[in-house]
Amino acid sequence: MNVLLHPDRLLPADPTTRAIARSLYASVADRPIVSPHGHTDPCWWGENASFSNPADLFITPDHYVVRMLVSQGIPYEALGIGEGARSDPREIWRSFAANYHLFQGTPSRLWLDHAFSTVFGLIERLSSENADAQYDAIAEKLQSAQYRPRALFDRFGIEVIATTDSALDDLRWHAMARESGWKGRVVPTYRPDSVVDPDSDNFGANLDRLGELTACDTGTWQGYLDAHRARRAFFRAMGATATDHGHPTPRTANLSEVEAAALFARIRSGKARDDDAELFRAQMLTEMARMSVEDGLVMQLHTGSFRSHNAGVHARYGRDRGFDIPVPVSFTLALKPLLDAVGMDPRLRLILFTLDETTYSRELAPLAGAYPSLRLGPPWWFHDSFEGIRRFRERVTETAGFRNTVGFNDDTRALCSIPARHDVSRRADSAFLAELVVTHRLDEGEAYEIALLLSDGLAREGYRLEQGDT
Amino acid sequence: MNVLLHPDRLLPADPTTRAIARSLYASVADRPIVSPHGHTDPCWWGENASFSNPADLFITPDHYVVRMLVSQGIPYEALGIGEGARSDPREIWRSFAANYHLFQGTPSRLWLDHAFSTVFGLIERLSSENADAQYDAIAEKLQSAQYRPRALFDRFGIEVIATTDSALDDLRWHAMARESGWKGRVVPTYRPDSVVDPDSDNFGANLDRLGELTACDTGTWQGYLDAHRARRAFFRAMGATATDHGHPTPRTANLSEVEAAALFARIRSGKARDDDAELFRAQMLTEMARMSVEDGLVMQLHTGSFRSHNAGVHARYGRDRGFDIPVPVSFTLALKPLLDAVGMDPRLRLILFTLDETTYSRELAPLAGAYPSLRLGPPWWFHDSFEGIRRFRERVTETAGFRNTVGFNDDTRALCSIPARHDVSRRADSAFLAELVVTHRLDEGEAYEIALLLSDGLAREGYRLEQGDT
Amino acid sequence: MNVLLHPDRLLPADPTTRAIARSLYASVADRPIVSPHGHTDPCWWGENASFSNPADLFITPDHYVVRMLVSQGIPYEALGIGEGARSDPREIWRSFAANYHLFQGTPSRLWLDHAFSTVFGLIERLSSENADAQYDAIAEKLQSAQYRPRALFDRFGIEVIATTDSALDDLRWHAMARESGWKGRVVPTYRPDSVVDPDSDNFGANLDRLGELTACDTGTWQGYLDAHRARRAFFRAMGATATDHGHPTPRTANLSEVEAAALFARIRSGKARDDDAELFRAQMLTEMARMSVEDGLVMQLHTGSFRSHNAGVHARYGRDRGFDIPVPVSFTLALKPLLDAVGMDPRLRLILFTLDETTYSRELAPLAGAYPSLRLGPPWWFHDSFEGIRRFRERVTETAGFRNTVGFNDDTRALCSIPARHDVSRRADSAFLAELVVTHRLDEGEAYEIALLLSDGLAREGYRLEQGDT
Repeated sequence: MNVLLHPDRLLPADPTTRAIARSLYASVADRPIVSPHGHTDPCWWGENASFSNPADLFITPDHYVVRMLVSQGIPYEALGIGEGARSDPREIWRSFAANYHLFQGTPSRLWLDHAFSTVFGLIERLSSENADAQYDAIAEKLQSAQYRPRALFDRFGIEVIATTDSALDDLRWHAMARESGWKGRVVPTYRPDSVVDPDSDNFGANLDRLGELTACDTGTWQGYLDAHRARRAFFRAMGATATDHGHPTPRTANLSEVEAAALFARIRSGKARDDDAELFRAQMLTEMARMSVEDGLVMQLHTGSFRSHNAGVHARYGRDRGFDIPVPVSFTLALKPLLDAVGMDPRLRLILFTLDETTYSRELAPLAGAYPSLRLGPPWWFHDSFEGIRRFRERVTETAGFRNTVGFNDDTRALCSIPARHDVSRRADSAFLAELVVTHRLDEGEAYEIALLLSDGLAREGYRLEQGDT
Repeated sequence: MNVLLHPDRLLPADPTTRAIARSLYASVADRPIVSPHGHTDPCWWGENASFSNPADLFITPDHYVVRMLVSQGIPYEALGIGEGARSDPREIWRSFAANYHLFQGTPSRLWLDHAFSTVFGLIERLSSENADAQYDAIAEKLQSAQYRPRALFDRFGIEVIATTDSALDDLRWHAMARESGWKGRVVPTYRPDSVVDPDSDNFGANLDRLGELTACDTGTWQGYLDAHRARRAFFRAMGATATDHGHPTPRTANLSEVEAAALFARIRSGKARDDDAELFRAQMLTEMARMSVEDGLVMQLHTGSFRSHNAGVHARYGRDRGFDIPVPVSFTLALKPLLDAVGMDPRLRLILFTLDETTYSRELAPLAGAYPSLRLGPPWWFHDSFEGIRRFRERVTETAGFRNTVGFNDDTRALCSIPARHDVSRRADSAFLAELVVTHRLDEGEAYEIALLLSDGLAREGYRLEQGDT
Repeated sequence: MNVLLHPDRLLPADPTTRAIARSLYASVADRPIVSPHGHTDPCWWGENASFSNPADLFITPDHYVVRMLVSQGIPYEALGIGEGARSDPREIWRSFAANYHLFQGTPSRLWLDHAFSTVFGLIERLSSENADAQYDAIAEKLQSAQYRPRALFDRFGIEVIATTDSALDDLRWHAMARESGWKGRVVPTYRPDSVVDPDSDNFGANLDRLGELTACDTGTWQGYLDAHRARRAFFRAMGATATDHGHPTPRTANLSEVEAAALFARIRSGKARDDDAELFRAQMLTEMARMSVEDGLVMQLHTGSFRSHNAGVHARYGRDRGFDIPVPVSFTLALKPLLDAVGMDPRLRLILFTLDETTYSRELAPLAGAYPSLRLGPPWWFHDSFEGIRRFRERVTETAGFRNTVGFNDDTRALCSIPARHDVSRRADSAFLAELVVTHRLDEGEAYEIALLLSDGLAREGYRLEQGDT
């Protein structure tokens, strides 16, 4: 018996509600996966090489998994991270298996069990006892052609997937995938943080490189903006329909051209004042919004994460090791300059994400329920979970409705978790809709229509994927 | 079959809990409506003229409806708002009907369906197909005497309704209603924002006018305070039992008389310093609280809305167009000066409202669960909904109990939604109480008593409506 | 019939879920009480004298009870508090009984009813009618040996209880209890606020006293730190396994030794600058964490309460009268200096508490789900309730799991409520776990294991009580 995946998982306890939810879920369970925001490695799609081993696939690169193990005293080195770390993947797998109980009650467990079961055919919960057997079973499958990235893409029913790519990236893997004759639709996303955020490593060199790539003079404000335009055009030509902006805060600004040019000059010449970096990021959000009005790229804003919270962990093990911790955020005043400038323009689409759930009902739903340019991204990161999705829908829907949201993002670099994450989302939304039906807030027929929108319709529409290059 | 109103709507899914909730709801469904805070137009009650057409009644003035349509790209002009706007109400109605699906899952839909069904006898959900027929049905009824404001007042079972009126208002419509021989109880509320907030339009002229109306010297601090006293007395004589204060923040101050007079002088003479406007509003809350101690008017404080967020919308379409967006608020330190001054005085009653739900359990319930002067207003604005009411009761009750709350406010300018809103509130409270009963946190007999309090008892008591002029 | 305690109280309404919850609860209902953080009076355990009367036991010292009565207009004096207060305990009891309905829907009622029923054998709900009879019944029992503190300790099944004690305390009552031959395990907790917080009353004199007690020179920074080390050693010798720190904010600092010594010198010499008191508290949290690394004492941090909010209440009736009101808190940046210094050290254990529930999912779960030194304390104070516990588990578990929490604290000075509080916690956790089981997020077998951890296992482990002096 497969103990990993109960067919009614995540559906409401009340029998009447569960029956409705089950039926709603069944209507969308097999819908294609539209994945407009994520972090799969473009190289997978370009090279289509086999994955090396179970630990590399499931443990080391997954910051959800790593941080939980670290939080209970397992050293990074035991997980294969850092200097002098353990290198035998089977040993890493055994540590993971011995501590698999730590994931009880977490979305990681749902995702992992789903992948173990549906992708690798395992039916027992991972433990020290079966660690070696499960390692062998996965490792063996990884060698077969059916477990290469493109085969998994097809098997998972992915219609389109977006990667997230530096503004300086040459998108060679995207080109390789397109030129290979493979039919899978993989599109890049323009992520210009490294050439927008003066606090990023090598910012000056990055701007020089931006100039080289575009033949624009990134020593001047207008040349710099033109360089962005050129790169955006390149990304669009490669299939991009969206940009993505990871900023510490949602602050925006709308300086005069003279002020903006002076600010740029101060930063470019290393004479930045105290607040200049933040002000520049703020100004650039408005500039990016203006470019989106021009070129139609959907703009995504992810804010509120304090990256690499622990200095020692950052120094020793690098970024993305599970130590990015949210801070309080407020959007209302922060977004006003941008929204005053272009917020009522129907050509702009700006999708907002938050790690501070207090903003759902207080700010985000009221903003998205008023501005035609705004949409709300799905629950993000720590909140991409059953309870997180429930809180999002409960707090957002009454003020913003369903159509000011954009369906689901899997947002992951863990390939095998993609179907699991969309499945959790479809189940959680079905549960929410069933609750509305059973309390007569929605007709059953309407619930089916909305379930379809939430599973893939709103993602396609919200990210303008119909209009994108196919 | 009427698809608009299921008799069990909003009641819990679990059959046992639903049976208890249904019975609790039945016990209060027909209780009189006590509406101590709202925005109906006094002119309706004074003149008792017919409403002009369905679009004017249901769409154009309802910022909940307008903002949702605007958020999905319908221009204000298509809704009859702004220069050169569409003027045919039937056309406006058709746009609304064609987009009625946008309100799925929102309280607006519950309110509208309730009004369409119970007030106008419609039984189908509004759509493009039936838009004209429903328009005609409503338009025809609006011409009959039974659909004039006072007839609706009686039909809705309204025991008393409070309007919200500028401190400078002559209350002529209230006088007209009283003198007409009509028995309906309509009372004004003293809302002095335009003569308390130095940032309001024409503040100086407003103070001059305040002086004229009261024969007080509003050029001096004491004369200005006396003018408030005089206007409050006038409002009381016209039936008011309450004041209402809409401030950006809940900040209060308790300056010495010398400091306060100097502050007033700076503001009156146009020599205000940076923080003076906010400080003056803060000081005036304490002054108003002191006057409430003297004259017994219940004080209401509504804070935390950033009004007219979009500059262009404000300039082109004016205020109250759906672009008031909440900001984070904190009461604990902000209210201390006022509460140190008069917070323990049993004669003061101060009712607090919030748009920042994080304050429910963190600040408001602890404050109201300690200070004898404080009561909590019901969920406000974006939170006046099923989920909003549930969150309020779940977060407030354990710390503040039921009796530190004041029942329900419909808070609306949409006359036909008044019964709908009270109905939602009674159903939501019945659902909450049933949950407490079924989990044995409350005896069933107690739940009936509390349901009665929440439906109208606490509103009457909380707003001192028994003591008011009848 | 006993109307006070339904056997299924707090268990979910859905029959399937309730059956699972009932069974989970049954498996832990009789587990020993491990109480690692609370405020029972050490004198009770040392002297083991009878409690004087029902009002002294249940009303006057219970700030939950007092504040609710005060909030509804009952003066402190009627509760026996303040100059010229009523002194007849029976009269105080009658006021309480007449207003017992105020506690409907609150945890106080659950706790009181549980104590009345299980400790004193009462079966009717308290009211004016039965006030005298219940008073007599309780008063009579209080005279018997079975109702002395140590007898209750045994009857309640307490395995270990921690008190909270000033760093300057001589722990004489703890010594008396140990020397009496009684087997009950009562341990002190090192609470150094009065010698760490420069804003506390008599801070200078407290430091002098600290010097006398330890023969350290508390006129110097190093002497002062040594004095802490000495007192911590004394507390450990007396059985302590933990320290507790009540700070207004969670701010920490990590100054150089020179800076810290200079800061100490400014404060000690009365030349503190504006921010020095806060900075000193911040620095001392890091120093305490370093000492915890050395001596293994578990560190608890309680922040975010604005103490004695009303000036008049504080002046007239003193501290702990129900007027401590929470303020917004943020941990992410505040804790960084401490965590950069020692946060990755496995020898440190720092347990975090909050009154600002917005930090659960935004900051605390991400922090505890990453740092090996961090654990989350249970819902605190206003949130130590059914809904509070539910919110905590729903917001924390998905990111931090179960094992980064430390079970339950009763945190009370109300002796008879201890079993009630642990019972509420066990029921609430059983309800939460049953919900996970019925939605197939957890296997039933796992739920039993976790129920055991949450009832007492994690408290014992989290507070290192196995390692403590027994």
